[in-house]
Formats: sequence, C-alpha cells, structure tokens
Amino acid sequence: MTMTDFDKIVEALAAADDITIASHVIPDGDCLGSMLALAISLEELGKKVVVVNADSVPDMLKFLPSQEKITLPEKVTNVSPLLVMVDCTDLERAGETVSQWKPKVKQIINIDHHVSNSYFGHLNLVDSKAAATAEIIYSLLLKIPATITPEVATCLYTGLATDTGSFQYENCTAKTLRLAANLMEQGADIPLIREYLWERKPLSSIKLLTHALPTLTLSHDGKVAWMSVTQEVLDKIGSLLQHTEGLVNYPRSIEGVEVGLLFRELPDNQIKVSFRSKKNVDVDKVAAQFGGGGHKRAAGCTIKGDLETVIKKVVSSVGEVL
Amino acid sequence: MTMTDFDKIVEALAAADDITIASHVIPDGDCLGSMLALAISLEELGKKVVVVNADSVPDMLKFLPSQEKITLPEKVTNVSPLLVMVDCTDLERAGETVSQWKPKVKQIINIDHHVSNSYFGHLNLVDSKAAATAEIIYSLLLKIPATITPEVATCLYTGLATDTGSFQYENCTAKTLRLAANLMEQGADIPLIREYLWERKPLSSIKLLTHALPTLTLSHDGKVAWMSVTQEVLDKIGSLLQHTEGLVNYPRSIEGVEVGLLFRELPDNQIKVSFRSKKNVDVDKVAAQFGGGGHKRAAGCTIKGDLETVIKKVVSSVGEVL
Repeated sequence: MTMTDFDKIVEALAAADDITIASHVIPDGDCLGSMLALAISLEELGKKVVVVNADSVPDMLKFLPSQEKITLPEKVTNVSPLLVMVDCTDLERAGETVSQWKPKVKQIINIDHHVSNSYFGHLNLVDSKAAATAEIIYSLLLKIPATITPEVATCLYTGLATDTGSFQYENCTAKTLRLAANLMEQGADIPLIREYLWERKPLSSIKLLTHALPTLTLSHDGKVAWMSVTQEVLDKIGSLLQHTEGLVNYPRSIEGVEVGLLFRELPDNQIKVSFRSKKNVDVDKVAAQFGGGGHKRAAGCTIKGDLETVIKKVVSSVGEVL
Repeated sequence: MTMTDFDKIVEALAAADDITIASHVIPDGDCLGSMLALAISLEELGKKVVVVNADSVPDMLKFLPSQEKITLPEKVTNVSPLLVMVDCTDLERAGETVSQWKPKVKQIINIDHHVSNSYFGHLNLVDSKAAATAEIIYSLLLKIPATITPEVATCLYTGLATDTGSFQYENCTAKTLRLAANLMEQGADIPLIREYLWERKPLSSIKLLTHALPTLTLSHDGKVAWMSVTQEVLDKIGSLLQHTEGLVNYPRSIEGVEVGLLFRELPDNQIKVSFRSKKNVDVDKVAAQFGGGGHKRAAGCTIKGDLETVIKKVVSSVGEVL
C-alpha cells in the first residue's frame, strides 16, 4: 500500500457517480461487512452503488444492514466504469462473472488485507497488517470523509469480530481493539451482532458437531489433527455447508496440535479442505500446492477425489512442512 | 462503590506492610488474574504479600505470572491484619478456612464486580458495571500508583478475556476493549494467553465434548436446553471437572434457547449446575433458589440428589421464570 494509491482511491471514489462493489465467493463477515460499510457510506454521499456477490448471504450474517441489496453479478446488465473489489486476493476470487468484467470496466480498485494479494487493481490498497479489510475501510471512510453511521459501525465491527475469531487470533492488535471500541460507541448494534454471530446457532449445526467430533483423528505425534464431514451426514441432519465453517477450530484448538484440518465432501466428487495453523506452519503455502490459498494461519482449497484419498494426500503434504 | 472507599483502600494498601489476598473457590481467570496483578504490584512496592486460594490453579491458567506463589489458606499460620478479597460476592466464596479468619483480621477490603455482592468488607470497592474485577484492579493500580508491568498486564488481560468470553458477552464495553488495547501495549503476553486459553485444550476435554453433546435436550418450546456429564464419563475419559467449564455454552448458543444449563455429577451425590441466559431470564435468582448465585446471565449452584431428579427440579424452576 502506498499513500499515493490511498489518496488516488479517495479521489476516484469522490469523482465517480456509479460504483460497483464486489467481494469474494462463499462470503464471510469481513468481506460482506466491508463491502456494505463502503456501499452505505458512498450512497449517503449521493452515489449510485451496486453491491454484488456470487453467493448468497449466510444466515448468520443476514442481520447486516443493507445486505438485502446484494445482488448476483449475472443480474448486473451494465457494470459501472469503476469496480471496487473488497477482501479479494485476486479478481477471480469474486467468481467467473465478475472476473469477466475486466475488459468492460475502466478502473479496478483493490482493497484487501490478505498477504497473498496479487495487486490486480489499477489502484491497490493492500495492508496485510490490518486484522480485517474492515480496518482498511474504516481508514478510508475517515479520509473520504464519510460519517460512521450506526449501520456502518455494525458492518465494520462484524468484519473485525469475525476475521479475528472474536479478537483471539494473531492478527488482532491494539489498533483493532481500539477500533472496535470506537465502533461500539459509534452505535454498532452489539446485541444484534452477538445474537447472530454467537447466540443463534441452528440446532442442526450442533448436531453436525455431534457427528463430526467422533471423526477426530491425530497424526504426526499429535501435531496434525482433522475431522471430516460427509454428504451423507449433511443430508441426514439437513445441515448446510455454511454450518461447517467453525468446525476446523476444534482440531486446531487441541494441545500439541500445530495444524488443524477439516475435510468436507462437496456434491460433485470434490473435497473442500480448510487449514488452520498455530505458530510454525505457513498453511497458505500448503493450500497453494492444491490450487488454494489464504493467510499464513488460515487457508483453504478444493480438491477433486474421494474423501479418503484427499485426506491422505493433504495430511502427507502438511507432514512435510511440519 | 463510593469514591471515599476507593481512596481509603488506596490509603490502606499504602499503609500496610503485610497483606493477604484471597479469591474464590474453583478459581477462574478473572479472580486469579486480578489477585495476582494486585499481588505483583504490591510486592514491587516492597510489601510482603501472601496470595491464597482454597483450590488449585486450573491447567489452562498455569501460565499466569506468580501463580506458583498461590498457597492454600490452611498453610497460612499468621494471617495479616489486612485481608483483601478479590472477585468474591461474600467472604464464604473463598472457602471455610478464609471465612474463619474474620475475627482474626483487622480490616477486610472487598473488591468485586458481581451484582450480588454483599458489601461484606470494612471497605468495599464494588462496581457491577465493570466487565471483570480486573477492570477495577486496573483503576486501583493507576491510583496507587503502581507500574503496569508486562506480568501485571498479562494477569489483567486474562481477567478481561475470560470474564467477557473473549469480548463477546454483554458486560464487554468500549472501556473494556480500550483497556485490553492498553494492556496489549503494556506488554501482556498475548501469544501465551492465546495458547493457554484457546489453543491447548487437552484432548480429553474434546473427548468430553464428544460424550456430552449427545445428551443435549431441549424443553419449553426450545427455550431451555441442557447437557449433562456423569462421573462415569469423566472417569472413562480421564477428564477433570475443570474441563467441563465451557460446556454450558453449547446449549446456550442454540437458536431460540433462552437458558442453557449444564449438570455435572460430583462424587458425593451432588450435582453442580451451571446456568447461562441470553436476554430475559435472571439466572442469578434461579440459582439462588438452590443456594447458589452469580450474575444475571451466568450463575451456578450445587444440589444434593441424583442427576435425573436434579435436572427435573432445575428445568422446572427455570420454566417458571421464562
């Protein structure tokens, strides 16, 4: 991130009347919170803003202000000259339709905090020290300047709280905590955030945990641990893939475990793998071997194959970098 | 809490050479963190400090600086004239030995944040708006004034993080978050805290969860949910009672549940009950019916009887206040 790009982005946003904002597939609290905070603020400044995401909003994030305005990229007939990409390491992270917009748009602004960001924008605001993209959006809003309304505060607080695992992960800094304090005072709806993020787990997700825990397996002297979820179990419980999100934290949290893994069967003979590490292993690199990516401590990939074979392959690759 | 008592406590601590500090039985991160932060600070000021607790330090808190100095009250032959009670609603919360010290000591200072505090001290510093007793200790240390060393910061951060459920509970305020930011900058050992609190669960505690989850039961149109742990399961897994601590959060976190309960068999035909509520139920009052207490949203009690009977009684009492 250069100050120059930061200032140019402020200028570009000020100059534009129509703005399209996109974020990554299988959206999380930070990408949606960041995207919506920016959208709400730009709309308040009188701009026409279109927010797109290729996937639907997970139930646990359906409280986010203006989330009902998020539309599928396929429904956008005339994409604006200015495209803002939020929380995406590259253009492809937003899905096929958005990446095909490249020749149609005049300018792409890339706002992200992933260390693996490819600087794919014409203007790039990338700060890998930020705990969440929400932290970067906050600085940007102050500079524009836009008022931090209670709605914006709710969106940004959600980004911080989800991407830091409730202020527990390594990425959480004193700056993050102070920003959270500011957002609380600026009217973030904490009871609503608390309820949706932490207090209304669907009963089916607890049932999913009940089925997943007995699959817990450890290897490499207890340094690698994993659980798996089959389609059969998902179907039986009537649970959704989105409910599997937090499961990877269970193997990771065990004493002595360095890398926690979760393997989830997708319907099309593919396995979605989530990686979480504690201190020494850069899981971003392991996931990259299988065409995935992410952060040093949290990454993911999707692999063709049956569950057993994929587990063997991935666990063996993790073992090599221990 | 009156300013007068606050000032008198600062004076009393300054005047004393020998100080005994005690906290409650079945100690948690806030009572130990607060007690040790105060002890370390007073020792740095040249005072002789004895820290006592009737129970041993749980494994997950064995990283706390100076925790090895905590001694059993029975081992204290000559209790000092000044007794400081930390994080206790009343003197009895520290166990029988400490409560029998009452006639022997000249002055009792009561520092606590529980709403049900009985103002049992000669001087009382009680602030039920504080997220944790650690928050009150921080103000006190600033006033003394004592340097917030990295060790003290580690103790106080632990108090904040544990008593707010990692900054998620209703008691967490902007003040709490800013205090946590300060403590981070004052050298709190966050990687150590993270590791012990969240990243080194004994495998047996995950096994315990694996056994407890299938006992999940809901009643009262899904507003009450509970799990139970028998002695048989504890023995089988080789798990300890301390590993059952977080389990009550599972029933509580379910969508639609207002009160989550955990029933744990103790060896002597007693059942330890933990209560957690979301918004409308004051579980402190329900626990009080059975001789227990705590906070509005988190309380506990111990009841004589067999598991099945106790579950029936408690669930019925909860049902009456829904």
